[in-house]
Amino acid sequence: MRILYHLPLSPFSRKVRLALTEKRIPFELRVERVWERRPEFLAMNPACTVPVLVEENGLVLAESYAICEYLDEAYPDVPLFGRTLSERAEVRRLLGWFDNHFGQQVYRNLLWERHMKRQLGHGNPDGAAIRAGYANLKTHMEVIGWLAERRTWLAGPHLSLADFAAAAHLSALDYANDIDWSLNTAARDWYSRVKSRPSFRTLLVDRVTGMEPPAHYADLDF
Amino acid sequence: MRILYHLPLSPFSRKVRLALTEKRIPFELRVERVWERRPEFLAMNPACTVPVLVEENGLVLAESYAICEYLDEAYPDVPLFGRTLSERAEVRRLLGWFDNHFGQQVYRNLLWERHMKRQLGHGNPDGAAIRAGYANLKTHMEVIGWLAERRTWLAGPHLSLADFAAAAHLSALDYANDIDWSLNTAARDWYSRVKSRPSFRTLLVDRVTGMEPPAHYADLDF
Repeated sequence: MRILYHLPLSPFSRKVRLALTEKRIPFELRVERVWERRPEFLAMNPACTVPVLVEENGLVLAESYAICEYLDEAYPDVPLFGRTLSERAEVRRLLGWFDNHFGQQVYRNLLWERHMKRQLGHGNPDGAAIRAGYANLKTHMEVIGWLAERRTWLAGPHLSLADFAAAAHLSALDYANDIDWSLNTAARDWYSRVKSRPSFRTLLVDRVTGMEPPAHYADLDF
Repeated sequence: MRILYHLPLSPFSRKVRLALTEKRIPFELRVERVWERRPEFLAMNPACTVPVLVEENGLVLAESYAICEYLDEAYPDVPLFGRTLSERAEVRRLLGWFDNHFGQQVYRNLLWERHMKRQLGHGNPDGAAIRAGYANLKTHMEVIGWLAERRTWLAGPHLSLADFAAAAHLSALDYANDIDWSLNTAARDWYSRVKSRPSFRTLLVDRVTGMEPPAHYADLDF
């Protein structure tokens, strides 16, 4: 069986889980405590990050970008990157935006600072970073709202990996109750549509030990 | 004419320049002072980062990842991502490694802290970050050396974008005289081979106002 090594609150793992499920590719989930630096895992991915996908033929894939591009090449039936060169450029521009800019400006300042840093032995949370994270999140919600008001899905007329990358980030933050959904109606309505997809269900039932999500987290009508 | 907006020391711009030249795609370079936040540039790329490529048909591409994937789809004659699914996964894993991990751990701590931060109004260089940058660079040079000792090129038997991404980062650091090439012979020999390619020439003649590269920078036999 295909195996995906992941962490429940890793937005990059969530993105790959959504891609696999949308493409109806069966897989088994294994939690990888990356901070334990397990030698067998390091041998598969020296960067020691999740997600890592191990295919049934033994092929090991690391880095969520590489995994998602591979999935679209190996299993093209449900395309997630758009159809034309121009659509694909826009999907990938937004993937860069969410995985890099949102990742650095929001995920790292909030989820990582507040919940991962101490666990990984990198010291105490930094208040200034957390404040910057909330300020950046507000701006990013406006960007998502702006896109959602003008397009059917974030990258254009088709549902794409850009929607799943953004929703993966937001869902991880939402688990930690870091999102004020009243801030942007268009962003909330778009997220509600992505969250209602069957592929989202397994994400919403995941629980992290010692950390309960808010009541609205798994509610499709939040 | 196709236009690439860039900055001379941006490793992401350098990677795209190498990809374009290896594929023999003609283009014109325009320096974009991203810190000026020019409205016309923001309209093309709200992230306000270089590189941005404007195709002859008007298609605007932002994020170096999106640009490189597009170039390989639109101009497949000189493939830069490998041939098989497994080769492509390895090229992209290393792209993730250099563009994200090396980018955050080395580029951001050295070139950005020392040369860009003040210019962009983000305060003074942080000594601890710079020390961490040099320590990380040493580890990354060992990784490059390890790969170069075991493979013809970094990702395997074929020259690929992984080589150009790594060499783009190193060449930008080398311009600032941040690399001690005596540390790792295998890494130096591999870099010497990439640096000798005709596509590297325009990078090596680039000059940044007020900042002279060391004597060995453009020397192919350093």
